Formats: sequence, structure tokens, C-alpha cells
Amino acid sequence: MTVTLEPEGRKVRADVGSTLLRVMLESGVSIRTECGGKGVCGKCRIIVKDQSRVSERTKFERLRLREAEIRDGYRLACQCYPRDNMVVYVPEESRVRERKIQVEGVERPVKLDPMISKVHVTLKPPTLAEVKPDLERLLESLEVRNDVDVDEDALRSLPDVLRAVDWDVTVTLWDMRRVISVELGDMSDLSYGAAIDIGTSKIVAYLVNLSKGEVVGVSSVENPQIIHGEDVISRITYTMEISERLEELRALALKGVNSVLSEACESAGIESCNVYEVTVVGNTAMHHLFLGIQPKFLALSPYVPVLRRPLNLKAKTLGISINPGGVVHTLPVVAGFVGSDDIGDILSTGIHKSKEMSLLIDIGTNTEVNLGNQDDILCCSCASGPAFEGAHITHGMKAVRGAIERVRIDPKTYDVKYETIGGVKPIGLCGSAMVDILAGLLECQLVNRSGRLRDDVPTPRLRKWDGTLVFAIAAGEETETGKDIVITQRDIRELQLAKAAIFTGCSILMKRKGVLPKDVGRVYVAGAFGNYIDPAKAKTVGLTPDIPTERVTLVGNAAISGAKMALVSKEVRDEAERLSRWVRYLELGADPDFVSEFTSAMFFPHKDLDRFPSLRSTLKV
Amino acid sequence: MTVTLEPEGRKVRADVGSTLLRVMLESGVSIRTECGGKGVCGKCRIIVKDQSRVSERTKFERLRLREAEIRDGYRLACQCYPRDNMVVYVPEESRVRERKIQVEGVERPVKLDPMISKVHVTLKPPTLAEVKPDLERLLESLEVRNDVDVDEDALRSLPDVLRAVDWDVTVTLWDMRRVISVELGDMSDLSYGAAIDIGTSKIVAYLVNLSKGEVVGVSSVENPQIIHGEDVISRITYTMEISERLEELRALALKGVNSVLSEACESAGIESCNVYEVTVVGNTAMHHLFLGIQPKFLALSPYVPVLRRPLNLKAKTLGISINPGGVVHTLPVVAGFVGSDDIGDILSTGIHKSKEMSLLIDIGTNTEVNLGNQDDILCCSCASGPAFEGAHITHGMKAVRGAIERVRIDPKTYDVKYETIGGVKPIGLCGSAMVDILAGLLECQLVNRSGRLRDDVPTPRLRKWDGTLVFAIAAGEETETGKDIVITQRDIRELQLAKAAIFTGCSILMKRKGVLPKDVGRVYVAGAFGNYIDPAKAKTVGLTPDIPTERVTLVGNAAISGAKMALVSKEVRDEAERLSRWVRYLELGADPDFVSEFTSAMFFPHKDLDRFPSLRSTLKV
Repeated sequence: MTVTLEPEGRKVRADVGSTLLRVMLESGVSIRTECGGKGVCGKCRIIVKDQSRVSERTKFERLRLREAEIRDGYRLACQCYPRDNMVVYVPEESRVRERKIQVEGVERPVKLDPMISKVHVTLKPPTLAEVKPDLERLLESLEVRNDVDVDEDALRSLPDVLRAVDWDVTVTLWDMRRVISVELGDMSDLSYGAAIDIGTSKIVAYLVNLSKGEVVGVSSVENPQIIHGEDVISRITYTMEISERLEELRALALKGVNSVLSEACESAGIESCNVYEVTVVGNTAMHHLFLGIQPKFLALSPYVPVLRRPLNLKAKTLGISINPGGVVHTLPVVAGFVGSDDIGDILSTGIHKSKEMSLLIDIGTNTEVNLGNQDDILCCSCASGPAFEGAHITHGMKAVRGAIERVRIDPKTYDVKYETIGGVKPIGLCGSAMVDILAGLLECQLVNRSGRLRDDVPTPRLRKWDGTLVFAIAAGEETETGKDIVITQRDIRELQLAKAAIFTGCSILMKRKGVLPKDVGRVYVAGAFGNYIDPAKAKTVGLTPDIPTERVTLVGNAAISGAKMALVSKEVRDEAERLSRWVRYLELGADPDFVSEFTSAMFFPHKDLDRFPSLRSTLKV
Repeated sequence: MTVTLEPEGRKVRADVGSTLLRVMLESGVSIRTECGGKGVCGKCRIIVKDQSRVSERTKFERLRLREAEIRDGYRLACQCYPRDNMVVYVPEESRVRERKIQVEGVERPVKLDPMISKVHVTLKPPTLAEVKPDLERLLESLEVRNDVDVDEDALRSLPDVLRAVDWDVTVTLWDMRRVISVELGDMSDLSYGAAIDIGTSKIVAYLVNLSKGEVVGVSSVENPQIIHGEDVISRITYTMEISERLEELRALALKGVNSVLSEACESAGIESCNVYEVTVVGNTAMHHLFLGIQPKFLALSPYVPVLRRPLNLKAKTLGISINPGGVVHTLPVVAGFVGSDDIGDILSTGIHKSKEMSLLIDIGTNTEVNLGNQDDILCCSCASGPAFEGAHITHGMKAVRGAIERVRIDPKTYDVKYETIGGVKPIGLCGSAMVDILAGLLECQLVNRSGRLRDDVPTPRLRKWDGTLVFAIAAGEETETGKDIVITQRDIRELQLAKAAIFTGCSILMKRKGVLPKDVGRVYVAGAFGNYIDPAKAKTVGLTPDIPTERVTLVGNAAISGAKMALVSKEVRDEAERLSRWVRYLELGADPDFVSEFTSAMFFPHKDLDRFPSLRSTLKV
């Protein structure tokens, strides 16, 4: 069968027994899906005019689609099996777009001392009277230990390389204890490495000149695993069912990593064979999947990771397209839900080296929270969910072109002013807009502290939609989709859960360490979403504790900055390994105060306003 | 086109532009070839009745085939391009047969201390209060250093294996510093390794129970590389022309090694996944080809190897079918033409540990000679050629079924008595028979000391064949082929060259070390051919120096015995590495006395009879 995708008119092949979602994903069509095709996220919306050519609606569609949408022919692609050649319209809101990806980060200055070193040498050729083997001849010229390790691929080409240009070669060594490459002539200037952040939703690479420690290229892509669910649990669940799927997800991670590497190299005009090492950070699930290690026990109590230690693996064996003898260094993880990305955050903010008590929050689908200083760091992971990244929110979307990112609500007229990424017509709401909206509604008293939208304020922006109360941000005539952009009562409930999870993490860590808000000298907010957030608004809704906003520093992608530091400094790697064992992990779910803390944190900003003395006047309560 | 192979009647496909040799080899037909299809060895004889269906005879065929053979339709398969469907008769003498393969050897007793150890442990499962990663949990139970290395494949399956049978597992460690496998339950009894000898013509495996140090299975095959030439130089030359051919030869070596491994396992009833380590010896060319290392510079002056050191490689990466985390240990080589097989010979005979001056000769296409004791060993390689293995000898063949292996010539009647391997009708002559024939002809004075066959003795065994003088060993009516088996004047010249090469090696080493025959306390003769040789006859023809035969010990495949010792003893590996650097290598070709020594050694037993005082009476000269 053939499926014609409108408005492009592209025709793709469909097999019997494949859902339209699978047909599109396999044809390379970027359609949104957060649950991986289970019918629960409601993001893979399409419009089918001729319903006779497709299977009947399922209960998932009746739950996720409004009545008006059903009348208009809306369907969920994951629920539709085509019965015949058919035409499918893929609306703007269902398409995956390039994200506003956070690639900058903070970084502490470190002494340049990478694992990779390149040495240019010219050897004396052998004679009948002096028949030393090629390798010994080379190693003697390098002044390294005689038992230095040698990569098999480097060994295989060694005799030809040595003799190609009169025994004049450049040797690349890893940690002065492994020869990973031997090249013709003087190539000592061309020494590059890459730091990689494998996020659940995006993969970012920094290409680094190892002689100078400078970033020379940056690239990022959606994590290709996203077609099997937007959060780690969906992906782990996906691998649980059939064992080959672990390899499938690993291959997708590799594809993403190789694509950012090649793009970064291309943009910097560098050959990938001159990239000799890659350092990798990611949450523990991404870490395991990247290495092809079974992650299923991360999702099952007691949430134990398979390993914590850093690994040094041969790039070629792993399938990473850099120099064949190159090395992939995965930074250590802390626990099942606190990965090496958290180690990267700590390394780059340096909270473990400071006397000041610091709170470090890396907001994502899982939010890692760290509290401490040079004496001790306690950390935890909060299941904040993907709401701030746009999932499970009616008009939620990622921080891509067309997303509303800033919102002001006039406290008198309830008029809304907004800004979109790219300055174009809006398509939906990204995380920072959601925080702005919540804070605005709260300040205007359109929502009360328990999160209920008021239905007694006479403004056209508060209205009923399929029986549900919504607050309208943008009218259909202003938007790209031609439809209103609203926030619903249900959306507010989702956001309450997300902010409560993060706040609970912060408050339990503070309780366990006996730290009060006034003791916290610095708050670091990391993560793609974290970098666009308005710290004052975040405090207003009670996402973060009541700490003066001048103490808040947005640090963006701090995880990759840590990976970059480890790339250029051996000392930082040792530091990372020590940290992974030294940082104390707290299992939030096992904390006796978890339930009471969480339920209190569901309020805006908190059930107990004494926790937010600075907001008393603003909130007029 | 289709080629029908008689007498089987098997039909094989032939492409235009492929020689009949290639057609047959690619169809898996085992046809002899020593030069790899260059037209020089004359072994790939076939009979074509209808010459109109095949290309014209070449000059190589006119050189290698006798007139009568040409009349009978004999051709060299490597020179024939089929023009049409055709019938080819493959005579008995052109077929490759299973060899009488020498698999036993000597061995010094060593302390059992293998690199592989298996430990059975039962772990305490994690709880929410104790979430140690799987790997740390495992390593703590093992009482090994925390930074022990872990195989990636073992790591990938670790979480499932640990949880499969209540955290009860068996860990296999290599050198107590690398976890190579984790298995369900108590598998500590199943610990096997293999010693492999990759010879130019055959590959042999010993399967060893590592808990007891006992050989539990033996297997051997022809080296599959043989289709690209019987000697190392042909194979090196083959790889020089097109770079992919190096990979092709490597794949053939792997195929051979995997086949002996699986056969040895099958015969012993052992799963290959319970084989955790393989030790490998071979000459330097086989060593390089097995590792996929460019060997061409071994064949070019100054004959430098790429590396000498031992290597420990992951079996899976190399393509060896044992446990995926298993290790392949290649023993060190000494020089371009003195490989790890020579190290194996020294290890198993123990000449480096003895006060006695010993001469160790491993006879093969290249013959390695070592002279020395615990104070010093000097070694060299002699290009003895494959004559003693049957190549370049009119009716020469390997020590397989049907080969004549013992010959007595009656000094009065010149009658010949012979024995064949398997007691069947003879097909040709193997090396030990050639030595017997030379010694017999010499003792009967049918050949003089310069190697010339006499034409003035009235015996029907001495006759002309295409104008060349030959001595008949067996008449056509007695043989399997129906043709006479003879030794020709040209054959004698080939054998003179071979024995002169070996003797020259011995005599130059003795000269350089100032050792006289009387000083040599022990002579070890190793190698497949060496084990069937009659030491007295070898001395008569001057293959070995004039040392009393009671001091000669035939040690058979001493190389693999050394590999087996290294498999079961760490100490022996260290010894091997020290030996590879300690043994002094002498480049025979660069020795100032080489030419004069060699030309004198061309005589039977030697130009200077004072070198063979014990033979004065026997040879009546």
C-alpha cells in the first residue's frame, strides 16, 4: 500500500500490520511521539479525511482527542493501521523540529594535560647488521616504557607507514601507555578530541583542539532513540520486551553520536581520523544503552546500575567513527538515576571545591539535585517528568522555532504578551513559558495556591473547552496552526507534579543535611530548559526554594562542560572517579518524609508559606 | 561453463578468465600446488583428453611435463583456461591427502599456574538501602583489586546473569586482572585452554584442561593458506600484490585455527565457550599473517619483523571462536625468520636451562638451528626449502598415506625394499625416504660424494627418463598410480641444496661459538619430518654434523609443546619473553663464511671428510 503524506505529497510504502506511526518513522518522517507508540502521549496526531481506508478509532484516541478534533478527522498515528492506499495530513504541531539546543556551559579553568599526545620522530632504518623489529625501533625513539601497549590496527599498518616517507612518522599515544596511531610525516599539530553529552532528548558534541584546549566546533542532534519514547523509562521498557532491541537502541545512540561527531568535524574542517579521544557523559540509562549494557534493572527497584566506574574503550570496537585506534572514555556514574551528566555538572561548577554551600539542579525529564560543598555532597534524582520539555501538556512543545518562550499576563486586564523562538507565529508553549504562565496566573490570582483555575473572573481568556477550564494564551488567528494555544486545568496539574518533584528533591536534601535556605550561598540551575527559565518566576511557583535570585546562576549545559574538562585534563578524570564514589546518593522514594514533602510541594509555591517569606507581599496571601 | 572432474564425475562452474586451478580450489577441490599457481612447481597435474576445449600449452608446461606425459594429455591446471564445457581427470598424485601429522612433542614439567582462574561466588542481592552497582558487588566478593579490568561482553550480560540464579555465578579471570566471563551457577570445574601451532603446512591444536594441565584433545588440519603456495615466500608474495589478500590469508589462518579448535573440543566433548585462552606459536610469517600484520618486509632485506613481543588479544576481536571474552596469547618471535615456534622448541627442550651444549634443529621449509646452553644461545634460519616435505621432487610428497617412508638398498643387488605409510601401494616419496635413498645410494656408491648418479653400473634400476638419469624405487606395476616411482638426478640436486642449507646453519653457528662436534652433548631434531628421520642416515648424507647418534633425540613437534607449557604456566611466558630478547640471532646470509661453508656442504657428507671421521669406514672413501 502507499501512503501519501500531505502537505508535501511524499509517498511512502506501508506494510499490512504496521501502524502509520511506524510507517512514517521507518520512512524517516520526523513525527512527534513521546510514549513510543503506546497511544498515551497523544502527540502523533494526524488528519485522515477518508476514514474508510484506515482501522477503527481505539479507546486511546477517544481519550486523547477532543470531540471537535475527532469530527475534523484527527487520529493518533500509532493507533491507525492503513487498509488501502491513503492520504494522511501531518499537521505542523505533530512535526519534530530542530530544537533550541543549549550547547554552552560554564567551565572551571583546568591545566591542559590531555591523555592524547602526539610525537614526531624520524627513525634510523634497519640494516643487515641491525635487524631490530619495527615496533622496538619505534618505541625506543619515543622514550616510553618498553611494555607500552600498541593498538592492533596501528600495528597492522606499521611496516608500510614507517617505510612510506623515509621512517618519518608521528605517533599518537594515549596516557603515554598505549600507541593508538602511527601516521606519515609530521602530523603533531593535528590533535583533536570530542566531549559528548548523550541526553535523553538530544546529543551534543564539542570538538576540542587538544593542543590548545579550545572548542573548535559544536554540533547537536535529537537523540535518534526518541522514536522509541521520549523518556528513559519508555526506552528501557522497549528493550525489556525483545533482547535485540537493546542492540537497536545502542545502534541509534551510536548513529546520533557519529552524526554529531562528523558534523562538528565538517564544520571545523577537520578529518575524523585526527580525533583520537571522546569523553562521554549522560544519565545512567543513556550510559548503559550507549555501551550496550542491559538497563532494565535501572527501572526496577532497587534501581541498581550495572557499573559506576569510568571505562576506556576502543572507539572502533564500540563503533564510534574517529581514529580507528582512538579511545572512548565514559565518565563514571553515581547511581541508577544519577549519571555521569551529574558528575559533569559538579566538575564544571566546582561545588565540590568550594567552601560555600551550593545547590545544583540539572532540570530534565529526570532532575538531578546536588547539595553540598568541599566537605560533602548529597544528591538525588527527582522524577520531574517531561512536562517542562513539552510532553503531556496540551500545547506543550520543546524549545524549538515557533515555541512561545516568554509570557507576561497583565494583572489588571489579563492581557497576554508573549515572545516566540525565532519571532515567528506561535505553535505551542515551551518550558520557560509554562513557568511564566504559572507565575503570572498566580500573581493575578487567576489560579489559587492549590492550582485550581478560577471560573468566576470575567475575561474571555478563561473559557471552557470540551468541558474543561482553560486559559487562552494565543488566539487561533495569531497562531501557525490556526488553533488557539491554551493552558488547561490538566496541564496545570502536570506542571504542579513536575515542580513538586524538583522542590521535594531540594527540600529533602536540605533537611537531611540540616541546611536552611539562608545557608545556601549559590544555586546553579543547569539543563537546556534551566537556561531559559526566569529564576524569580521559578521561585514564585515554588520550583526552587526561597533563596535570593541574585544567588542563582544559570549554567546551561554544565554536563558537557565537565566532559570537556575531563577530555583535556587527566587530573579531572581522577577527580571524576573520586566524585562518583564520594558523592552520597539519597534514594528519595525511600525517604520517610518523601510523601509529606511532596504533597506539600504540590501547592504554589508551597503548602507552608513560611517556607517562602520573600513571596508574602507578591502573592498577597 | 561447466567442468566435470573425473573420476568422481563432480561438476563445477568455471568463469571465463579463471584457470582450472582456481576453478578447482574455489570449488573446494583439494589439488596440490606449491607455488600457488605460478607454473613453477609442476604439482597441479591434470589430464585433459580434448585439448580443443582448453587454452594452449605454455612454456611452463613444456618445462615441467615430460614428453610422454604431454602425449597422454597431462597439463598443469594453473596454466589452463577452459574454453568450453570440459572433462578433467585429476590423478591420484595431484590430490591433497591427510598428512601423517606429528602432534606429539617433548615437554619439561612445569608448575601448574595458568593465567585463567575461575571463582564461584554467591552475592548478597541489593536493597533500597544498599544500592551498590552490580560490578562493584561482584568485584568485592572476588577479593581482587578494585581497578581490575572487565570485558565489555561480560559487562553487557552481567545484570541478567547475576539475577538468573539467585546471584550465584562463576567468574573467569585472566591473570587476576581482567574479568573475561561471568557464568550462571558453579562452573568452576570447566576451565580449558588450547595451544596452537600454526605451521606453514599444518595447524595443530592441543586442548588442555587448565585445572590439571593435561591434554584432553588433539586436532590438526592442513593450513588452508596452502592454496596460495606451500612456502612462506609464496604467501608473502601473494599478499604483496593486492592489499586485500593480506586479509584473505588472515581469514584462511583463522579458518584453520577455528577448525582445529572446534574439532578438538568436539572430540573431547567440551563446549568452545569453556575455552578461555589460546597460546599460539608459528614462524614469523605465520605469526604476522595470523595477526593480519603486513609480512612483506620479512621477505625483503634486511628481513625485519614488525614486532617481537608477545601479544594478548581478545579472541572475539581477532575472530577466534572460544569464549567471547577469551584471550589469544601469541608467543614472542626472535627475528624475521626465527619465529615463536623456535621459542617453543627451546622452552620444551629446555636447552637454555642446561649446562650441556645443545644443538636444536627444527626441520621444515625453513629450518631453525639453535646452538647453546644456559650461558648463551645463538640461532639462525636456513632456507632449506620444501624438498624434504616433497616439493620440487619428481615423486616427492608429504608424509601421508601411500608415501614411502623407509627405503633400504641392497649394496650388492641394488634391490630396494620399502615401507609405505598405511602399508598401502606407494604413491610417492616422503622426506625420510629421501634421506634413506640418498644414504643408500651413497653407501652403494651409486651416487658419488658430489651427488652424481653413476651411469656405468649395470642395474635396471638406473635408467634414462626423457634423457635424465633416474634410479627407480618402485615399478609401475607395484604403485597406486601405475607409474614408476623414481629419484632423478635433478631431485638429488634439490636434496643436496636442502641438506647443505641445514648443515651450513649448524656449522656456522658452531664456528661462531667455537664449538666442536665433540663438545655437543645433545642434538634435538624437531619438526614433522624430523621425527621420522633415521639419525644415522641423516649423518651419512651430511644433513647433521658428525655427532654420535646416541646423542640425538627426536622431539617431534617441540614447538607446540612449548606453547602448551606457556598455556599452563605464567612463569614460562615470562621465560619466553626473556628468551626472545636473549637468544642471539645470526643472519646466515651476512656471514663472511656462508658461501664457502655452503658450497662445501653440498658434498655428501661434506667436501672435507675430516669433518665426518666416523663415516670414513662406512663410505669406503
